[in-house]
Amino acid sequence: MKLAIVGYGNLGKSLEKEIDKRTDLMLTAIYSRRTLDNGRYRPLQSIATTHDFDVALLALGSYNDIAEYATTFAQLDTVDSFDTHAKIADYKKAVGDVKKDSLSIISTGWDPGLLSLARATFGIGGGESVTLWGEGVSQGHSNAIRSIRGVIDAVQFTRPKPNADERISNGERNSAKLHDRICYVACIEADKQRIKREIVTMPDYFADYDTEVIFTTPNEVRQLKQRTAHRGQVVTVGDGFYVKTDVRLDCNTDYTAKIMLAYAEALPRLKTDGYRGALDVFDIPLKYLVDRPLI
Amino acid sequence: MKLAIVGYGNLGKSLEKEIDKRTDLMLTAIYSRRTLDNGRYRPLQSIATTHDFDVALLALGSYNDIAEYATTFAQLDTVDSFDTHAKIADYKKAVGDVKKDSLSIISTGWDPGLLSLARATFGIGGGESVTLWGEGVSQGHSNAIRSIRGVIDAVQFTRPKPNADERISNGERNSAKLHDRICYVACIEADKQRIKREIVTMPDYFADYDTEVIFTTPNEVRQLKQRTAHRGQVVTVGDGFYVKTDVRLDCNTDYTAKIMLAYAEALPRLKTDGYRGALDVFDIPLKYLVDRPLI
Repeated sequence: MKLAIVGYGNLGKSLEKEIDKRTDLMLTAIYSRRTLDNGRYRPLQSIATTHDFDVALLALGSYNDIAEYATTFAQLDTVDSFDTHAKIADYKKAVGDVKKDSLSIISTGWDPGLLSLARATFGIGGGESVTLWGEGVSQGHSNAIRSIRGVIDAVQFTRPKPNADERISNGERNSAKLHDRICYVACIEADKQRIKREIVTMPDYFADYDTEVIFTTPNEVRQLKQRTAHRGQVVTVGDGFYVKTDVRLDCNTDYTAKIMLAYAEALPRLKTDGYRGALDVFDIPLKYLVDRPLI
Repeated sequence: MKLAIVGYGNLGKSLEKEIDKRTDLMLTAIYSRRTLDNGRYRPLQSIATTHDFDVALLALGSYNDIAEYATTFAQLDTVDSFDTHAKIADYKKAVGDVKKDSLSIISTGWDPGLLSLARATFGIGGGESVTLWGEGVSQGHSNAIRSIRGVIDAVQFTRPKPNADERISNGERNSAKLHDRICYVACIEADKQRIKREIVTMPDYFADYDTEVIFTTPNEVRQLKQRTAHRGQVVTVGDGFYVKTDVRLDCNTDYTAKIMLAYAEALPRLKTDGYRGALDVFDIPLKYLVDRPLI
């Protein structure tokens, strides 16, 4: 199977590493907007006219420009890990609208993706699910801090409150009451009070959370960014049952890459069976992802 | 939605109880081979000629007589919890072969069923899964003990070894090395040594396990049988990740009933979309079981 990677940030690099481990997969090209010092680099605008791969693995930093997505990738079979939960439905519709003979599997990865499957599976008995993330880096929140004037660098770790399980048992379902956010920030001394205030009052991101701001050096922030481990727990509480799914991973992007590759391998079988347009993990029977009968 | 229950053991009774809790479901009849003291009872042989329900919920003690299944249920839409893992493939084929315009969803429940989905989901990243059962009653093993000459009554509890997690981390995958089996047996004094020997040497069931036999009174066995709680854990170990799914339930058959009802509700939607024959949980996209887009 021949694959292309589109985008060469952390996820693109993880995809490259995982494909190179596999003898049954071949990486034909890495497409990027930036010129890369990589023998497999090709400029992104050339992707629409090349046909030497089966599936394009989208590892773009942002999928916000839906119009550009539509024109650039309309003819291609793609797998992505689009992860802005609130925008998935719009994204799916936009992608589906431009795909005629091609197929896109969207929002794979571990969350959304495998934890979505866990929430759906254990919701079958009528349960209600709460998800706990961390301890691990929240990329979007780290970016939000870095966008504050005067911040040199920053990284934000999310972790469940120590008594999160107990709070869930007592009926708490609000994510903001179940997590703490710890922000490591490098900035100059004079800006500290203002920056701290801007962080802890930032709506949507921090205002509703217990947020701790720790000022440190750019060097320590750089080192903390290398902590790639993450964890996700789905707790499902129902009438007469309790389910906990606990996923611990060494490297967020490596795990996402493995999952994207599994869906890429399923894609040709789905096309053979007539699937077209945009599918998410709820649309795809698990028989396409396992290599044996019911287990 | 109108439902019928076929079979009136523990599972049939749990199905009746769960349906009666629900305002959107109606129980039209309970079919059984035995004459029941229940206002909704009808003799099993009348089921093939009645058409006043949408889905038949099969709660038979045994599905071994495939030929009888085929003739009796060929025209009906059914949901079952057939759980003899080794025979599921044959059962699925036999059911599928007789279903033309009808649909059967087989082997739902928590295991096989939801834990099958968990094993498949977390196998997507390339992991290998081990399942731990208990502590809870193993019905098949309890029956095996009761079939020994001289046994008045018996119940068998299965539980993971205290260090099962550590053994899995060290590479152990053999279920017999990860569980203990505790047998409570009522019999007369003179038979004890022979019965104990017959239990612990019974091939497939006990010979490979650490098995403890505790002799007690018929009364205590009867009380122990009322412990309906059960637990299942799926541990998936992969390259760079570790997942544990832990399902705890108050009552084995109540939980199975809830899951069967969810699949029964999905069945008409699956038929509308063209599905026929025999499906297991790997064949059915989760979108049919959840009431909202990707979560």
